[in-house]
Parts: sequence; C-alpha cells; structure tokens
Amino acid sequence: MQISLNELAHLLSGEVVGDGSQMVHTVAKIEEGFEGALSFLANAKYEPYLYTTQSTAVLVNKTFQPTSNYATTLIKVEDAYAAFTFLLEKFSNVSQELVGIENQSFVDSSAKLAKDIYIGAYSYVSAEVSIGEGSKIYPQVYLGKGVKVGKNTILYPGVKIYYDCEIGDNCIIHGGTIIGSDGFGFAPLADKTYKKIPQTGNVIIENDVEIGANCTVDRATLGSTYVRQGVKLDNMVQVAHNADVGAHTVMASQSGVAGSSKVGPYCVVGGQVGIGGHITVAEGSQFGGQSGVLASISTPNGKWFGTPAFDVKDNLRSTAIFRKLPQLLKRVEELEKEIKQLKG
Amino acid sequence: MQISLNELAHLLSGEVVGDGSQMVHTVAKIEEGFEGALSFLANAKYEPYLYTTQSTAVLVNKTFQPTSNYATTLIKVEDAYAAFTFLLEKFSNVSQELVGIENQSFVDSSAKLAKDIYIGAYSYVSAEVSIGEGSKIYPQVYLGKGVKVGKNTILYPGVKIYYDCEIGDNCIIHGGTIIGSDGFGFAPLADKTYKKIPQTGNVIIENDVEIGANCTVDRATLGSTYVRQGVKLDNMVQVAHNADVGAHTVMASQSGVAGSSKVGPYCVVGGQVGIGGHITVAEGSQFGGQSGVLASISTPNGKWFGTPAFDVKDNLRSTAIFRKLPQLLKRVEELEKEIKQLKG
Amino acid sequence: MQISLNELAHLLSGEVVGDGSQMVHTVAKIEEGFEGALSFLANAKYEPYLYTTQSTAVLVNKTFQPTSNYATTLIKVEDAYAAFTFLLEKFSNVSQELVGIENQSFVDSSAKLAKDIYIGAYSYVSAEVSIGEGSKIYPQVYLGKGVKVGKNTILYPGVKIYYDCEIGDNCIIHGGTIIGSDGFGFAPLADKTYKKIPQTGNVIIENDVEIGANCTVDRATLGSTYVRQGVKLDNMVQVAHNADVGAHTVMASQSGVAGSSKVGPYCVVGGQVGIGGHITVAEGSQFGGQSGVLASISTPNGKWFGTPAFDVKDNLRSTAIFRKLPQLLKRVEELEKEIKQLKG
Repeated sequence: MQISLNELAHLLSGEVVGDGSQMVHTVAKIEEGFEGALSFLANAKYEPYLYTTQSTAVLVNKTFQPTSNYATTLIKVEDAYAAFTFLLEKFSNVSQELVGIENQSFVDSSAKLAKDIYIGAYSYVSAEVSIGEGSKIYPQVYLGKGVKVGKNTILYPGVKIYYDCEIGDNCIIHGGTIIGSDGFGFAPLADKTYKKIPQTGNVIIENDVEIGANCTVDRATLGSTYVRQGVKLDNMVQVAHNADVGAHTVMASQSGVAGSSKVGPYCVVGGQVGIGGHITVAEGSQFGGQSGVLASISTPNGKWFGTPAFDVKDNLRSTAIFRKLPQLLKRVEELEKEIKQLKG
Repeated sequence: MQISLNELAHLLSGEVVGDGSQMVHTVAKIEEGFEGALSFLANAKYEPYLYTTQSTAVLVNKTFQPTSNYATTLIKVEDAYAAFTFLLEKFSNVSQELVGIENQSFVDSSAKLAKDIYIGAYSYVSAEVSIGEGSKIYPQVYLGKGVKVGKNTILYPGVKIYYDCEIGDNCIIHGGTIIGSDGFGFAPLADKTYKKIPQTGNVIIENDVEIGANCTVDRATLGSTYVRQGVKLDNMVQVAHNADVGAHTVMASQSGVAGSSKVGPYCVVGGQVGIGGHITVAEGSQFGGQSGVLASISTPNGKWFGTPAFDVKDNLRSTAIFRKLPQLLKRVEELEKEIKQLKG
Repeated sequence: MQISLNELAHLLSGEVVGDGSQMVHTVAKIEEGFEGALSFLANAKYEPYLYTTQSTAVLVNKTFQPTSNYATTLIKVEDAYAAFTFLLEKFSNVSQELVGIENQSFVDSSAKLAKDIYIGAYSYVSAEVSIGEGSKIYPQVYLGKGVKVGKNTILYPGVKIYYDCEIGDNCIIHGGTIIGSDGFGFAPLADKTYKKIPQTGNVIIENDVEIGANCTVDRATLGSTYVRQGVKLDNMVQVAHNADVGAHTVMASQSGVAGSSKVGPYCVVGGQVGIGGHITVAEGSQFGGQSGVLASISTPNGKWFGTPAFDVKDNLRSTAIFRKLPQLLKRVEELEKEIKQLKG
C-alpha cells in the first residue's frame, strides 16, 4: 500500500507543486529524508534542509516561499504541522475493537480489572494484578503476582511480566518481550563458581512508553529498573538490572544498557550499540550504530561513534586514515629509507 | 550421536579410502571443512579444496583420481552429489507425525483450514486466518486476524504472527519468533517527544524460507516488509519495517537489517552484522561477522568487513597495522629525532 | 527498596565504622565496587582493593586492621565471608510457594512427574517427558517429546524446550528462552539455493545453570550442544549447534557462540561479544564487550578485546593511537616536507 501525492493533497485540501503521481509509503524527518518518504516543514530553522532533502515530498505552509532550488515536491497546505499530525491520526484508525475477557484465559479472583479491557485466551493474570481502563491484554500474556498495568496500554501476544513490575498508561509492549526477569547478578565464590545474588527489586515502565518485540528488561537487585516516560525501544533491546533509561530516549534494535547505568533523557541510541555498566550518559547524547560506550559522558547533546566511543567527527577522521594505513606505513618506510640515505 | 565412515560407506554402497573408524557428526562445504565434518566433491572446480580441506571425510565420484596429496579420507561412491543429497534426505526422516486440532486450541469459526494440518493446544487462530494443507502449528502460537499460512509450513511453539501477514509454502519458523510487530517509526514533535507513526502495512514471507528462534520481522509502515524465497535467517535476526531481504540470502545470528533497506539475493551476512537503514546491498555480497554496513553497495559479489565495512582484504591489511600502531608511532618518533639531528 | 548500613549491621550483629545512614542496593566484587554496592573482604590478597574500592560499604572481619586510608565504610562482623553468604541466602527467601498442576495445563499421560512440582496453566508437557522433584514449570511453557527436566529447576513463563533436550538439576531458565531449535545448517546446492541439513541431535544443559530471558540454544546437527555445569548466561545469548560452553563460564547479554566452538571453563564473556565458529577458547579467557573472536585461543586466563580480538592491553594502546591518527598523519606529512627540504 502506497499513496500518491495527489491523493494526499486531496485528503489535506492542499495543492501539489510538481508531479502528483509520485508515491510515498512512509514519513521521515526532513533532514533524514529518502525516496518514498513524506516530510514536513513548519519551523523556519529547518528550511535549509528543504533544499537538500531526499524525501519525495514535503508538506509546507501555503504561505511558504522557497528561496533556493529544491529537488523534492511540495504539498502546500493551510498548516503543515497540523496536516502532518492529522495524517498520523488518520492512519492510526486501524481500530482494534477488542473488548471483553475470553473464556480460555486465567484470571485470579483477587485481580482488579477496570472497565473496557480485553484479556485474550491463554493469558494468565495472577493474584493481586491490576489492569487499568481500556487496556488490551492479547492472548498468551503472563502477568505475575501484583503486576500493575495502567490505562489504555496494549500488551501484545506472548508478553511476560514477572511479579511486582509496573507498566504505566498508554504504553505498547510488543510480542515476546520479557519484563522483570532476574538481573544478571552472581557473587564469585572462593572456588571460582558463582552464587546467585537474589534479584528482589522490580521494573517500573512509566507512561507513553513503546517497547518492541523480544526485548528484555531485568528487575533490579534491590530498588527498581526504570524505563522513563515516552521512551521508545526497538526490537531485541536489553535493559539490565538497576538501569535507568531517561525520558523520551529512543534505542534502536539490538542495543543494550548494562547494569546500574543511567542514560539521560532525549538520547538517540543506534542499533547494536552497547552501553557499559555503572556509567552515566548525559542528556541528548547520540550514538552511531554498533558504538560501545565504556565510560560516562558528561557533556550533553554530543554525537559519539565507535568502540570505545568518541566524538563522531573525530572518529570518522581516524576511520578514514585507518582505511589507508597500508599507505601510511609505506610513507614511513619511504622516510626511513630517505633518512638512511641522507645519513649515509 | 555420530556415524563412522564405515557405516556411511555401507549406507551409500561406497568404499572408504583410509581409516573407516573415524567419526563424523555434521556436513560442511569442502572449502570450509573442519574435523568431524563430511564434505562432497562433485564439481571439478572445487578439486583444489580437496587437498587442503580439514573435513574428516569427502564423498567423491568412484572415477575420481586425486592429482596431489590430501589429508582427508575419501569415500568413493557412484555419484558424490546424489549420495550427499541422499544422506540429507535420509537423516531428515525425523518424522513428526503431528496431525489434528488439539482440544485446547482456539480456532475462530471463520478460519479456513486445509486438510492434514496440526494445531497444538493453546494456539490462537483469529478470524479470517487461512492455513494450507499439511502445515503444522505447534502449541502456543498466535495467528492474528487475516494471517495466511501456506502449505507444508511449520510454526514452532510460541511463534506470534500479527494480523494480515503472509507466510508462504514449505517455510519453517522457530520458537519465539515475532512476525509483523510494529515498525520502529516515530515522528519527532516540537517538544522533543515522539508521536507514533502508524504501521499499517504487513510482512510477506515467501516460500522455502527458514527463520530461527526469537527473530523479529516488523510490518511495513505502508506496503510490505519482504523476506524473499529461500531466505535462511538464524536465531535473533532483526528485519525492520519496509526492509526487503533478497532470495536465497542467509543471515547469521544476531544480525539485523534496518528500515527500508534492500538486501540483494544470494548474500551471506555474518553474525552480529548490522545493515543500516535506507541502503541497497548488491547481489551476492558477503559480510564478515560484526560488520557495520552504513552505505549502499553497488558492486555484486564483494566481500566486506569492519565498521564501517570496506573490502575484507583491505580491511585485514589495515587491521594488521592497527595491531602494530605503537611500533609505527615509535618509528615516526625515531624519524623526528633523526631529522632533528640532521637539521641540527 | 534499599537498606541502610545500620540495618545491615543489626542483621549481622556487626558494627558500622563510619556513617551508618548510607544506603546500599546491591552487592559487588570489591575490585569492581561502585556507589550503592556492598562488598566483602575475606582474603588478604584482596586487601589493596579496600583502599581504592568505590563500594559504599565493605564487610570485614572483626579482627581486620586497615593499613592505609580508605574512602568506603566498614561493617565489622565475626566472619565477613559467612556474613556475605548469609545475606545472599536471607534475601533469596523470596519464597515462591508454587506447587501443584493447574487445571488448564496439558500433561501427556506418559509423562513422569516427581513430587512437589508445579505446572502452570497453558503449559504443554509432551509424551515421555520427565520432571524431577521440586521443579517449577511456569505457565505457557512447552516441553517437547522426551524432554528431561531435573530436580529443583525453574522454567519461567514462555520457555520452549524442543524434543529430546535435557535440563539438569537446580537450573533456572528465564522467560522466552528457546532450547533445542534447529541448528543453522544448510548445504549449498549447485543452483546457489540451500538444502536444510537435518538437525537430529539435542541440547544438554548440566546442573546449576542459569539462562536469562529470550536466549536461544540450538540442538546439535548430530550429538549434543552442551551448556556445562554452573554456566550463567545473561539475556539474549545465542549458543549455536554443537557448541560447548565450559563449566562456570559466564556470558553477558547479546553475546553469542557460533557453531561447533568449544569455550573453556571459567571464561568471562562481555556483552555483545561474538565467538566465531569451529574454534576453541582456553580456560579462564576474558573478553571485553563487543569483541569478535575469530581464531582459537590456546593460552589460558588471557584478557582479550576488539575485533579481531587481541590482548586487551595491546589493543588499548593501539586504540589510543587510533584516536590520534590525524595527528600522526600530520607528523608524517611534516617529516616528508622536512626531508624534501633537506634533500632539496
């Protein structure tokens, strides 16, 4: 399914400036545009990106006048930002009208269930669980003793939440994700074997969090592991015991935060990034894919790359030379020869 | 369980040239042989590998005459390739005679079920699902509304397939894998929070695909995420929204493809490799383990390594010098001293 | 939940030397201490760490006399090691008094169930399964035909164990983990497609093993994949077919061992580490996070880092120079200029 620019313009009572038969299939930030994507420009600060964006089309205000050449196609609307959020709302009407408790579910008699909830077959709701209004628990979900689920939260099939963990309002947790499994804590004994350190804390997922499929968020040793308000985790993200992922931070697939680390708010963590244990990462930090973060970062809003991670621009400079190390070695060998001749 | 070369020769009406009491436990390509493995040689092009292979034994045609020394043991058979495929068939008779619909499953009355299928207990088959002839749905599987499963396909315990996704014929999907979870798409708002971009597309898995345990394949934002014919994914592989994994491509464990990327056919992707978003990878590309692919690759059949990935031979040359950077630095320091003396 | 040092001292009939109002929330090795952690010092060999540890408090023997300055707080007890293990025991009394077989489970009539076991609802126990005394099978677990589970073992919700696999005594396997899925084995055919190599072996998990959430351990092609006694695997760890993970080895989250590799006992494998296929890793090897191990390691007790991994100290020296490659390049350019002048 794709949509033509003409159809979009029609939906938004707007006007296409360019070829309206082109198709888009997703949306993207204007500065990260690509073919097939629709972006929007509402804030003058972002105007320069209009002239370089690779998005197929950009929603702009009717009053907008470009000041340079551009390769994209414009759709002029009354209010570009409002039109963009309207589109998001519109497409989200994939309404899932699931309500009621299916027969083949297990619900302990002490569970507190608010109205308008759904509990699918083969889901297991333990003693003292509470589920808030409008929440949907798909089939084959497990909620351990005392788990709290807020309002309008969706738990997709196969989610497992261990005892005492808390999930906020308006959260989405995708299939196969495990919340509250034991932290990885073992005390080394004199004979080089390990003794389990009991993991008696819990996990607290705040409001407006989305967690992808097959993620793991471990319970704290003591206290809580936190996933703060508005955090978005992609698939297969690991959050270890006693970690704290700051509000509105996003982490891409297969990344992980090790034990007791505190990631600040508004961070952007690339795919397969590893954040080491017992460190603190400043607000707004961004990490390129596969970076390894071994030490605390105190400067906010930095961009980092590599293992061990350092400033992305510096890293790319070093990386460029790394690719030419054989030539550099030859130049040094040449110098050695010349010196020898000069001395000789 | 292992098998001696004598037993193999007996099974294949062949003859061992060497010590028939040696044991093998698996098969391997002749050029990637190792102790305990059986390989075969049918194509003269591969003959040079016979003289270097580390496989314990190699099946060869009765008429084959070696032209150099070799360290492996030969098993001479009428037709080496036919014997090899015969062995694979033979060992695959681990017949799983599961048929029927177990009582404790949930099957919506609108589901279309072909004959000779199996549906295990605690599996959930939603409205408008179709399941083709001979397919086996193990216990605790979830099939969302409108999911299509082809013929002779096996879904192992705990597989979850979200609504509208399609699985082809002769596919195998291992336990815990999630197909069709929402793509990781969020629009950044002015206040630095994120708004979910509805993911309204689906996933299409073509025929003859095998997907390992605990993988994730996200549904497209609009349109489809594709896993093409004959693709083989190992465990914990991530395929993001709108990605397209080309026919007969194999991806090893813990690797991932980011959003909207197109991986060509016949590629070989090593373990823990990350392929970035919005790029295209040419047919037959091979990536060493842990490589990070940040830009499109247009040359087919290349071999790549590192993060960012570049030609594997060049990379290994640079890597070899990287290991000796302290010596290189010393040589430069020495040169500086000598220059100073010369100038002084 | 946290505990003050005063409370701890009270529990242990000990005495705080310093500020008893400080709180701890976990335990740590004295040489890896951090704020909020409690350590212990029982062996004189570790005394130097007392003077540098960042743990909030350290349990020491009553008779201990420090010989230098320290920043931590001491808790003096009769026997520091006994007190530490007492605390671990004490906190582990998060008793899970689950016993009995819940109605909505499926248990084949040929299964052998010892006494005092628990089987939760929606769990599936196939023919010829045996479960040892005191073991707890949480809801939504799958045990394939002939699976053996030892005594006092816990399988958390959603664990899936394929046919013929064996789990030892006193094991813990966390939610979503898949044991015994097919190894990733395919024979390349002449037309560049792949034919599945039947995976007819099994997995053997020995005693005292803990495996985290959403891990995967593949069955062997022939023979067994081994996870040896006392091994601890964190979340999302991959163990491929025919691998053998040595006794008391620990592997952190998102690490993996490829096919047929043998990892020695007492190894410590960091997060996101990849150990390549068909190699042997010596006893006591330690790998820093994200390392890639491409070749066998025959020296025991080494510390390794990087991809490809080499000695950690050497690697960090090279890494330090890597960060300054642009300066090194400039120095070489400068030398070239000077040589030119000298020659000119």
